[in-house]
Amino acid sequence: MTSILHDHEHEQTPAVKIAKAAKSAFEASQLIPPAERVKALHEIRKELVNAKDDILVANLRDCLAAQAEVDAGRMSSSLLKRLDLTKGDKWDSLLQGITDVANLPDPTGIVTYASELDDNLELYRVSCPIGVLLVIFEARPEVVVNIAALAIKSGNAAILKGGKESNDTTQLLAQAIQKALSRTSVPSTYIQAIQTRAEVSALLALDKYIDLVIPRGSNSLVRNIQNNTRIPVMGHAEGLCSIFVDESADVEKAVRVVVDSKTDYPAACNSVETLILHENVLNTIWPTIAQALLSSNVQLLCDSPSLFALHTLSPAPENISTHVHPSTPQSYITEHLTLTLSVLTVPDLSSAIKHINAHSSHHTDCILTENEDSASAFCRGVDSAGTFVNASTRFADGFRYGFGTEVGISTGKIHARGPVGLEGLVIYKYMLRGKGEKGHVVGEFGIEKGKKKFKHVPIETKTAPY
Amino acid sequence: MTSILHDHEHEQTPAVKIAKAAKSAFEASQLIPPAERVKALHEIRKELVNAKDDILVANLRDCLAAQAEVDAGRMSSSLLKRLDLTKGDKWDSLLQGITDVANLPDPTGIVTYASELDDNLELYRVSCPIGVLLVIFEARPEVVVNIAALAIKSGNAAILKGGKESNDTTQLLAQAIQKALSRTSVPSTYIQAIQTRAEVSALLALDKYIDLVIPRGSNSLVRNIQNNTRIPVMGHAEGLCSIFVDESADVEKAVRVVVDSKTDYPAACNSVETLILHENVLNTIWPTIAQALLSSNVQLLCDSPSLFALHTLSPAPENISTHVHPSTPQSYITEHLTLTLSVLTVPDLSSAIKHINAHSSHHTDCILTENEDSASAFCRGVDSAGTFVNASTRFADGFRYGFGTEVGISTGKIHARGPVGLEGLVIYKYMLRGKGEKGHVVGEFGIEKGKKKFKHVPIETKTAPY
Repeated sequence: MTSILHDHEHEQTPAVKIAKAAKSAFEASQLIPPAERVKALHEIRKELVNAKDDILVANLRDCLAAQAEVDAGRMSSSLLKRLDLTKGDKWDSLLQGITDVANLPDPTGIVTYASELDDNLELYRVSCPIGVLLVIFEARPEVVVNIAALAIKSGNAAILKGGKESNDTTQLLAQAIQKALSRTSVPSTYIQAIQTRAEVSALLALDKYIDLVIPRGSNSLVRNIQNNTRIPVMGHAEGLCSIFVDESADVEKAVRVVVDSKTDYPAACNSVETLILHENVLNTIWPTIAQALLSSNVQLLCDSPSLFALHTLSPAPENISTHVHPSTPQSYITEHLTLTLSVLTVPDLSSAIKHINAHSSHHTDCILTENEDSASAFCRGVDSAGTFVNASTRFADGFRYGFGTEVGISTGKIHARGPVGLEGLVIYKYMLRGKGEKGHVVGEFGIEKGKKKFKHVPIETKTAPY
Repeated sequence: MTSILHDHEHEQTPAVKIAKAAKSAFEASQLIPPAERVKALHEIRKELVNAKDDILVANLRDCLAAQAEVDAGRMSSSLLKRLDLTKGDKWDSLLQGITDVANLPDPTGIVTYASELDDNLELYRVSCPIGVLLVIFEARPEVVVNIAALAIKSGNAAILKGGKESNDTTQLLAQAIQKALSRTSVPSTYIQAIQTRAEVSALLALDKYIDLVIPRGSNSLVRNIQNNTRIPVMGHAEGLCSIFVDESADVEKAVRVVVDSKTDYPAACNSVETLILHENVLNTIWPTIAQALLSSNVQLLCDSPSLFALHTLSPAPENISTHVHPSTPQSYITEHLTLTLSVLTVPDLSSAIKHINAHSSHHTDCILTENEDSASAFCRGVDSAGTFVNASTRFADGFRYGFGTEVGISTGKIHARGPVGLEGLVIYKYMLRGKGEKGHVVGEFGIEKGKKKFKHVPIETKTAPY
């Protein structure tokens, strides 16, 4: 007997085939014990070791093509550097990353709510994978392996699109992953790689099969995807982080935290881009912070009060003529990603909070203060994924937070916010188990006399009823 | 001193004014203790009691206009019935609903992860409101009050758009709410009502100010909104629920659960629409279930095997000539919302799971079985918000689940799934508190010798650090 139903909804275009294969792989995998997914991760590691030479040859091809682009002035050399899998310990960390993810606790099958609704009628809210992920990222080809590992560990199927510069490497990495999966009970179409933007566009229309899009890249990439799909998007967008120096800030803490936030790794999304000064620190702490930044080769884009405070100092700070410039309104909405910092003066804490809420990217913002009330107001009032007190914005990171690894940092406001680990790749379902002798019906409950009332007694368990 | 920055991004259209007012109301409210929000709810209840006469007069105007539409055959009488605030105990339950929500536990300020990253460096993940909600719903005007109460309790600002039939009532309800808020520390623009679709369209473009759209209505409303906004949408869409009768099902349980799921309230989204039969029950349990459904006046749309099984019975079941018809492929993708049930036969559990995953709306699906392995496979394999064993699909409801109330039932796969209570209206932020004497910097950590390692020691607390 076969089903009388056929799928007339979508033609079998290549994108539909890919999406349907991913969805069936996901659905089939739900019946496989989580331990099998961990086995698959070890198998992938083995296969990557086997295929190392071929992968590095493909990577060399990508790098040579990229070098030609760099020579022609059409690509930045930093992009080329990110492409090269042989740089430093990249290959070994790629392999280690798989083992690390395999060893993380299983995020699925966790009971987060359980209640006895009636005698023998038990409700469980159980964490489970989301389904099919479409992940779009830029040049670094090792991301294929990271994302594949995270997807498999959390029980999600994934379709991956890397940067076109890394196409050859990405394809070989994906082939190795599929080859490894074909030796396991996890379907080999669990992880698929695609190559073109046209495929991405076609997939963005298939909300029947794809459950979540994760773009990792520029703000414009994220917005472009959000504009062109009904599928939910978990945006890994820009980081326009700020630090507010409150009037009660400690000078030593201020210098350490600001310098670290700006200079530890300026190209990272969690580096600080705007320094906001309480007007009462203009002639007290600000000169010391400014001198420390200037000594670290930081360029300062200052508003009038902060500029004036530096120009009236005697002796004049080192580098002032080359490194201190007036800011423009544009300065405060720019993610510099370099050793440049915008500086703004405000009359009070409340103005700082308002400025941050209106201009920051809701990633991570910090207050330097010795006043507990100010700390508290800042942490509650600033509407960002991270609100920090006397600590570098650079701490905003999945590894540093203790998640083991991260899919990205979400600047969105629903589902997952800030550094997203395995927990951000699961959702839950409600499992209701009727264990009574007669089957459980709603018609027996009600407010009328003789009707049953719901018990709603919490069940103490962490274990799913399967 | 004023900020040198101005908002050039959006013209001050009416929609922008509304959205900006909502965002500032939200931001201002973050510094108000949660107890003030509860006070505001009590104030709203008082004001509604004061304004009762005016509201009911406006409601009468809406009802008379609707009656004219019904008489002209342009509106259904059930829509009119839903409009009328004087029907039964509607007004009293509206007031009681506010008190109930006020009495629920505060969903904000709850610590869901806390870790000591280093000596004196403490990370807290604290639940907090999402921001500004745009809620679009259909005729029932009391939804304005329900949603306003849920939004205020969870700390979110809300912009509400009701059905155009209830415009007068909605406006007066919203005015009473704003009047009540103006006597509290919660800004009165925390809850705003809009009247036109044009305003909705304009607001859907303002992702800078609006954080989540919640459409409560038809599938086409939800899809239309998803197609026209970058803002995340929490869809309260259709319910195409199924029940699978496994070969090991108990006949008494099957009859009770299927009849309740279909007949308890056929117009509800959690009523069953498709009955899936294991082929081995065609001549055993199926005739008894069918007879019970036919006696309850249910129309059956049957595939060939299930039809044949009924037609070969002797004596012929009651109502068979008027209530049993052949199904079409369309039957299995239709949300009947009436006393009609589609019936499909499958060869095994795995085919049932596949059918459900391909055709159900991922709302709630049930298996009738005495076999624990089948129950387990069904609950894991069916990708729906609710997977039930031997219990009516009608249990899928926020009140029955024990959430006190619900915003709606989400058939989406991220953020919140199934019945959505207050928990679905919050997200979290990471608060990092540096309490050391020198300010905490990332540059001191690393794998190199002499560098610090992260401690990642769990902190046992439920209390936010503010």
